[in-house]
Amino acid sequence: MRSLSFGEYGGNDMNRKLREFCGVFGIYGDPHAAEKVYLGLYALQHRGQESAGIAASDGSLLSVHRGTGLVWSVFSNPSIMPRLAGSAAIGHNRYSTTGSTGLVNAQPLFIQCKIGQIAAAHNGNVSNAFELRRRMEEEGSIFQTTTDSEIVLHLISRSHAPSLEDKIAEALVHLDGAYCFVFLTKDRLIASRDPYGFRPLCLGRLGDALVVASESCALDIIGAAYERSIEPGEILSIGPEGVASRRMTPARRRACCIFEYIYFSRPDSIIFGEKVDKARRFLGKELAKEAPCDADIVIAVPDSASTAALGYAQESKIRFEIGLIRNHYVGRTFIAPHQDERDLDVRVKFNPVAGVLRGKRVVIVEDSIVRGTTLRQLVRLVRSAEPREIHVRVSSPPLVNPCFYGIDIPEKKNLIAASRSVEDIRRHIEADSLRYLSVEGMLRAVTEPEHQCTACFTGDYPTMISEDCKKDKFDFCRLGMA
Amino acid sequence: MRSLSFGEYGGNDMNRKLREFCGVFGIYGDPHAAEKVYLGLYALQHRGQESAGIAASDGSLLSVHRGTGLVWSVFSNPSIMPRLAGSAAIGHNRYSTTGSTGLVNAQPLFIQCKIGQIAAAHNGNVSNAFELRRRMEEEGSIFQTTTDSEIVLHLISRSHAPSLEDKIAEALVHLDGAYCFVFLTKDRLIASRDPYGFRPLCLGRLGDALVVASESCALDIIGAAYERSIEPGEILSIGPEGVASRRMTPARRRACCIFEYIYFSRPDSIIFGEKVDKARRFLGKELAKEAPCDADIVIAVPDSASTAALGYAQESKIRFEIGLIRNHYVGRTFIAPHQDERDLDVRVKFNPVAGVLRGKRVVIVEDSIVRGTTLRQLVRLVRSAEPREIHVRVSSPPLVNPCFYGIDIPEKKNLIAASRSVEDIRRHIEADSLRYLSVEGMLRAVTEPEHQCTACFTGDYPTMISEDCKKDKFDFCRLGMA
Amino acid sequence: MRSLSFGEYGGNDMNRKLREFCGVFGIYGDPHAAEKVYLGLYALQHRGQESAGIAASDGSLLSVHRGTGLVWSVFSNPSIMPRLAGSAAIGHNRYSTTGSTGLVNAQPLFIQCKIGQIAAAHNGNVSNAFELRRRMEEEGSIFQTTTDSEIVLHLISRSHAPSLEDKIAEALVHLDGAYCFVFLTKDRLIASRDPYGFRPLCLGRLGDALVVASESCALDIIGAAYERSIEPGEILSIGPEGVASRRMTPARRRACCIFEYIYFSRPDSIIFGEKVDKARRFLGKELAKEAPCDADIVIAVPDSASTAALGYAQESKIRFEIGLIRNHYVGRTFIAPHQDERDLDVRVKFNPVAGVLRGKRVVIVEDSIVRGTTLRQLVRLVRSAEPREIHVRVSSPPLVNPCFYGIDIPEKKNLIAASRSVEDIRRHIEADSLRYLSVEGMLRAVTEPEHQCTACFTGDYPTMISEDCKKDKFDFCRLGMA
Amino acid sequence: MRSLSFGEYGGNDMNRKLREFCGVFGIYGDPHAAEKVYLGLYALQHRGQESAGIAASDGSLLSVHRGTGLVWSVFSNPSIMPRLAGSAAIGHNRYSTTGSTGLVNAQPLFIQCKIGQIAAAHNGNVSNAFELRRRMEEEGSIFQTTTDSEIVLHLISRSHAPSLEDKIAEALVHLDGAYCFVFLTKDRLIASRDPYGFRPLCLGRLGDALVVASESCALDIIGAAYERSIEPGEILSIGPEGVASRRMTPARRRACCIFEYIYFSRPDSIIFGEKVDKARRFLGKELAKEAPCDADIVIAVPDSASTAALGYAQESKIRFEIGLIRNHYVGRTFIAPHQDERDLDVRVKFNPVAGVLRGKRVVIVEDSIVRGTTLRQLVRLVRSAEPREIHVRVSSPPLVNPCFYGIDIPEKKNLIAASRSVEDIRRHIEADSLRYLSVEGMLRAVTEPEHQCTACFTGDYPTMISEDCKKDKFDFCRLGMA
Repeated sequence: MRSLSFGEYGGNDMNRKLREFCGVFGIYGDPHAAEKVYLGLYALQHRGQESAGIAASDGSLLSVHRGTGLVWSVFSNPSIMPRLAGSAAIGHNRYSTTGSTGLVNAQPLFIQCKIGQIAAAHNGNVSNAFELRRRMEEEGSIFQTTTDSEIVLHLISRSHAPSLEDKIAEALVHLDGAYCFVFLTKDRLIASRDPYGFRPLCLGRLGDALVVASESCALDIIGAAYERSIEPGEILSIGPEGVASRRMTPARRRACCIFEYIYFSRPDSIIFGEKVDKARRFLGKELAKEAPCDADIVIAVPDSASTAALGYAQESKIRFEIGLIRNHYVGRTFIAPHQDERDLDVRVKFNPVAGVLRGKRVVIVEDSIVRGTTLRQLVRLVRSAEPREIHVRVSSPPLVNPCFYGIDIPEKKNLIAASRSVEDIRRHIEADSLRYLSVEGMLRAVTEPEHQCTACFTGDYPTMISEDCKKDKFDFCRLGMA
Repeated sequence: MRSLSFGEYGGNDMNRKLREFCGVFGIYGDPHAAEKVYLGLYALQHRGQESAGIAASDGSLLSVHRGTGLVWSVFSNPSIMPRLAGSAAIGHNRYSTTGSTGLVNAQPLFIQCKIGQIAAAHNGNVSNAFELRRRMEEEGSIFQTTTDSEIVLHLISRSHAPSLEDKIAEALVHLDGAYCFVFLTKDRLIASRDPYGFRPLCLGRLGDALVVASESCALDIIGAAYERSIEPGEILSIGPEGVASRRMTPARRRACCIFEYIYFSRPDSIIFGEKVDKARRFLGKELAKEAPCDADIVIAVPDSASTAALGYAQESKIRFEIGLIRNHYVGRTFIAPHQDERDLDVRVKFNPVAGVLRGKRVVIVEDSIVRGTTLRQLVRLVRSAEPREIHVRVSSPPLVNPCFYGIDIPEKKNLIAASRSVEDIRRHIEADSLRYLSVEGMLRAVTEPEHQCTACFTGDYPTMISEDCKKDKFDFCRLGMA
Repeated sequence: MRSLSFGEYGGNDMNRKLREFCGVFGIYGDPHAAEKVYLGLYALQHRGQESAGIAASDGSLLSVHRGTGLVWSVFSNPSIMPRLAGSAAIGHNRYSTTGSTGLVNAQPLFIQCKIGQIAAAHNGNVSNAFELRRRMEEEGSIFQTTTDSEIVLHLISRSHAPSLEDKIAEALVHLDGAYCFVFLTKDRLIASRDPYGFRPLCLGRLGDALVVASESCALDIIGAAYERSIEPGEILSIGPEGVASRRMTPARRRACCIFEYIYFSRPDSIIFGEKVDKARRFLGKELAKEAPCDADIVIAVPDSASTAALGYAQESKIRFEIGLIRNHYVGRTFIAPHQDERDLDVRVKFNPVAGVLRGKRVVIVEDSIVRGTTLRQLVRLVRSAEPREIHVRVSSPPLVNPCFYGIDIPEKKNLIAASRSVEDIRRHIEADSLRYLSVEGMLRAVTEPEHQCTACFTGDYPTMISEDCKKDKFDFCRLGMA
Repeated sequence: MRSLSFGEYGGNDMNRKLREFCGVFGIYGDPHAAEKVYLGLYALQHRGQESAGIAASDGSLLSVHRGTGLVWSVFSNPSIMPRLAGSAAIGHNRYSTTGSTGLVNAQPLFIQCKIGQIAAAHNGNVSNAFELRRRMEEEGSIFQTTTDSEIVLHLISRSHAPSLEDKIAEALVHLDGAYCFVFLTKDRLIASRDPYGFRPLCLGRLGDALVVASESCALDIIGAAYERSIEPGEILSIGPEGVASRRMTPARRRACCIFEYIYFSRPDSIIFGEKVDKARRFLGKELAKEAPCDADIVIAVPDSASTAALGYAQESKIRFEIGLIRNHYVGRTFIAPHQDERDLDVRVKFNPVAGVLRGKRVVIVEDSIVRGTTLRQLVRLVRSAEPREIHVRVSSPPLVNPCFYGIDIPEKKNLIAASRSVEDIRRHIEADSLRYLSVEGMLRAVTEPEHQCTACFTGDYPTMISEDCKKDKFDFCRLGMA
């Protein structure tokens, strides 16, 4: 009997494809700050399911709780939330991997240094982390996690700059790559975004309280109003006296991760100042223009490709249908049967709606193809409902490069599009036709195409990537804490 | 801080509205019978989330495991499945209620009597259970659960009929109301459906093994082929010598629960011999014909109303959109904030897609209205995205009567449509317009309108309902086993 | 890696030797009845570690909670105790076995019948249970557990006697063997002991409340005063009007289990009207008279043999020492190392005190020998501390017969004394000498020798034992509920 | 209803009185090193019940697992031990406190620095930790725990000394106070003891493997032979080439903690080269000489005072009896009743043996008195058994000073002997007489009286104690990780 692990309690598409590294949230000035963070993390659950944590400040001391699992489970013990007292708090969701380091890397990280107590939550990937770390180790520093947060906390702690904001600014200057940091001290909340703006971070307001979140859907759940995107290179410092903003210099080329639009962010979110739903629908429409299809119905691979499929259907005037039902009950440890059933992991998640599919020429819209394995099984599953034809349309270009800015794209050798032609892939997934969206089409779907990072499709990395960064991450700790 | 409980790990619509009483599954002749049942129960999880159980026979002895929680969780301990050995097995999902009796009523029930060991799983509601039970108590019987299964097992055990099938037939004659039973003895699996056919039960085949299931989606997940619906009044006996069918007499009016089409069953299932998806789409189309709307977009309350909304959109030629995003991560014990936020339980589940809704005249399609509370909150939530108008269309008639055949419809006084006019309800839910599907329209959506039970809408109960049955169920045991 | 299971969280001698079947407790007239039961069960934990349960009555309805594990763990969820409301309650501890049926047989059993709700807790073994059950099955009864309680509840429910007490009296007449029953209805608590008086049951008083318990140590923990032993054949009925006692007829020979004195009961308890500590010390003294030893020190196998060892030391004037330290931290799943270490299960529990033992002639007092395996390992362990000689003295006679009255003595073939001579056993356990107490010596240690059951030593069974009873118990259900 | 927490699953005397800070264990050269550590930690469980952890090295990489709870529970998931591969491993038990920081401070600590990976386990208390830490913070270091281990790892990492041993030696020079450290790198295990030798650490051998442990009972459980005590100021380095020892200079006065003999260590252990059982018995004998009593029996407060009581009985020729039974089943969350029962926490743990005590003049031997609360309740409990007189004898002098060397003695104001006369205390505990052992008598019980630390009795602290150290520890983190 083999065990299928679908990450945590299921419900999203994380295991099918790529993983985001994290979601962050912070609030300053709310009497029940930790509870707001809890709700915000819940809304950001799709950005990370491995572990979650909240740090809160009551004005003099910080408290923190972290754990592995989904947000509701990490905080399910009723004794926890009351102990996270105070009017300022930050939180973090971390993604799920196989063989992970568990609690060791759970965030917010929490330290004591000469400035006092600091908690830090991070979304992104500091691409020169390895070099910075090695240099600090040479100087005698010790490291207890593999998080980028630990590196930046070392830098802050070592800084001789006068104010906390100056220290943070000085520390961030050393960092390359993608990061959104949210820091909490006893009396301040500081949020910052890298100068390229790879990952999203937005600002909201709930009464007198200020809120920062990876996506605006986390503002919605607490009833906060969306104010604006925190700018690339901006450091926002919120304290008793109000909020102050400063910019890191020099300004860099903007490089917002286009994959946030394609797949990661929730369609009801605003990121980088733009509605995800709108961009995602345009991807579907561009796809319909570039790769039309003589078909009877359009179906999505639910739920992540639904919006793009709707766009495809609207543009192509082909009827949109619900052709695959998704089971959201998948749990942590699903026991699979003895016999070798290759397609079981797809079948426990999806079931075709035979009445919709039978005898039809079907367009399946998928948002991206990583390894091709799941899609191949899905096509077979749909085939079992006896459609006349199956045409796969992908609302992003072929994925051919790894990401060094916070998305867990596998090595090049595992990316099917990196080594095979589209026709090869079509044969592999056993579709009657397969078309990807072009890079140009993809960029037409967003309002500021020149401000996107498209490196995973084009290889055009906005920053220098060192050899260390390209290698596998150092395996700091093979077994974590339960 | 208050605790919201969304049933088990969430992911379906159970808590928003009505609850089905159960799902059943059985297989005979498969070397890994219990594992097949496990998968089948997983596919039927939407029919019950409170508890789950499997009984298996190795040809001489039965073994059973039951527990509270979702299927994956009840069987997550790896030591359990290997102990459920044998080539025949049955399983059961039980629905979730507040203050429930927990494990005491978990099924399959498992007894020893003069026939030997019998396990039984039941879906439905025996409407004369209370009288039968009281009569048997008078005769000296003892009861350890409040399940209908226990009553029928008493009747079987007392029967002097020669064969097991005869005993079962004799026992079932005493029952009024709705039931699908699946029995397992050391060498037989027996399935039966009440003469009215209230609840669905179908037969499938996987190689040489025979399979019975509440819905065909449970056949799909194990790769079994759908054969047919088990007939109202049919007793199907499967044993080493093959399968035999007999009918209970006399035949009765058929009365298949129309709510299975409206809401309960999965759209990818075949029930009562008909595709759910097809009927549900026709409900939407009939609704569009009866209650058209001058609007810009049609959205569904996801996921249960999606198919009907699609039907409405197709018939009305109004654009279908995804206007509400559903969060599937809700867990067992979601901690809600201090402050009184009435709409929080809706907001943790749904978020409007502002870009889709703003400035639009929106049709929201919902499948049914029970108390009206959730819908009112949903309309408010949608209103926060600033649509121009909100028009609610319900793909079933006003719900005005309780169900005595296996659906947990609340008392009449809690059914908003039982005491208020449609206009009153519209005002209550704060919609710009509200229209229900008519009973006639509903019946036009199914192929055999004369064979449906519509009592919850029409009061036309196919059987006599005693006063005892109308009263609240006897609260046998207020605290169960953990 | 192999897993050693020491029953539950350890702390007593249950796994080393014999197992008692159960402990019972009941209280009537206390505003916090269930909490008193909880404490009482905690004091009786040594009588059963597999499962625990409490049933309480608030005067109109009963509630019950049962679970597997130690008492503190079964009731650790803070939501449980408040739901067990009422001024009358009963409780039960069940012993631990390998491959047990788990929750299925957890008590108190709880039924609904024509009398209303009844909960029952049982300590003992009804020796004609199998016949009674078969007969009732023939008459159409169904059984859901293998507990004797279920049988007696069937008998009560079928009785046509006028009052509850009469029904119980009528039911008990059918039973052979050993039993202490405690029943709870909505307004009465009834306790009864079999006419032979095999198992102990005593009565106490706490203010106006009446208390029954297997041992008086459970009265002590709640501060209740010991009143008297409930008599063999007595039925005690406690209700709103007060307490009434009646006797079953005819009176039988008294046969109190002498093993309660030797090993099972706590030394601080009064059972059968006598102090356990006193009897156990006399066993040690008699042993010293019968089997003296030329030695330097006397040590006990802690903790169960400590009192007898003290008696031995006092009588023989040999110095008592603490020569073995017992580790009480053993948990549910202790992981043992790869390498074959036969004596590990003894070594994780005991460690010799080298300074006490080295160079000494040591008497080890043990209370009984079942299989001889553990004692052999213990002797080896003590030998590693380099004593000059090791002399084993056993404060009971050779154990040669199974028990049909509630003690889990293994089959005859597993009793080392049933097939081997004392000298053989001595060689097996590698002691320099081995002596058992004689039956006569054992009986001299108690005040009413003619009222003891000594069947496991002498074969003199007070009741007829049927062939069915002698066979292995029917394996009703090989897999329980988690 | 109030919750009593008795630390972990009970079984020792930790909660009644003082708490040791920790236990450490290490092994080098065993194919199943982590399993040996697991057993060793199990034997050392009495030295810490809050959390446990093991770090192992397979020669190139370290792995670690830590968790809260007892050893068996932290490692109960069967997937853990196989992942702790390698032939060298160290482990740690941490003590239990109320409101503790949980997992944050669980050990072994595990870091990456320029030397590579290092794991560290610590027993003791570095008395200048606060100053060292503040100084390092000033220099820019960050701290994630409040363990002394983290401080020493910083020092090691910053050292420019050539070899690992040199770095450790250089680091340890900065430390004041009490410590036993065990370090693990990929290919070495290093153990060291502070120059005063406050806490015990011994060396053993199992085949070719070398073992270090806080007490020798941890050698016994794995069958290792005791070699010797690691010397004060010794640094023992074990690697592939063998073992090397070096001394820190200058040598200091020896100051072995005398409380290890009085209470903490297991009686079956050898510590500081001496048998605990022997010293503890002498304490009882000295007590009998200094504070004789005209009494009938001597009883111990089990289990920690049993050996001293035996010594008292042997010296005084008064009969030793078991007068108090201890219940070892206390669990993590014992629910106590509503009504105010001050003595309940004593009554759930102890029960007097009435037959032993009634009418007798009783000497109760206790090893130490901290607050006096528990003893007062115990005397009352014993009084309920109606002895004629109760005489308390304490096998250590009055406890009047806090400890800064690793024992959790409460503040002076909470030490009853710091502010009250012996006669006052006698009245408080309601004994007929009370006598303590004198400092001189205590020192006569050990072989090297001049090498003991007696500061908690005499105020003679072997090291300078700074004001910072005297203040409460900095509350780094009020809420840990679950």
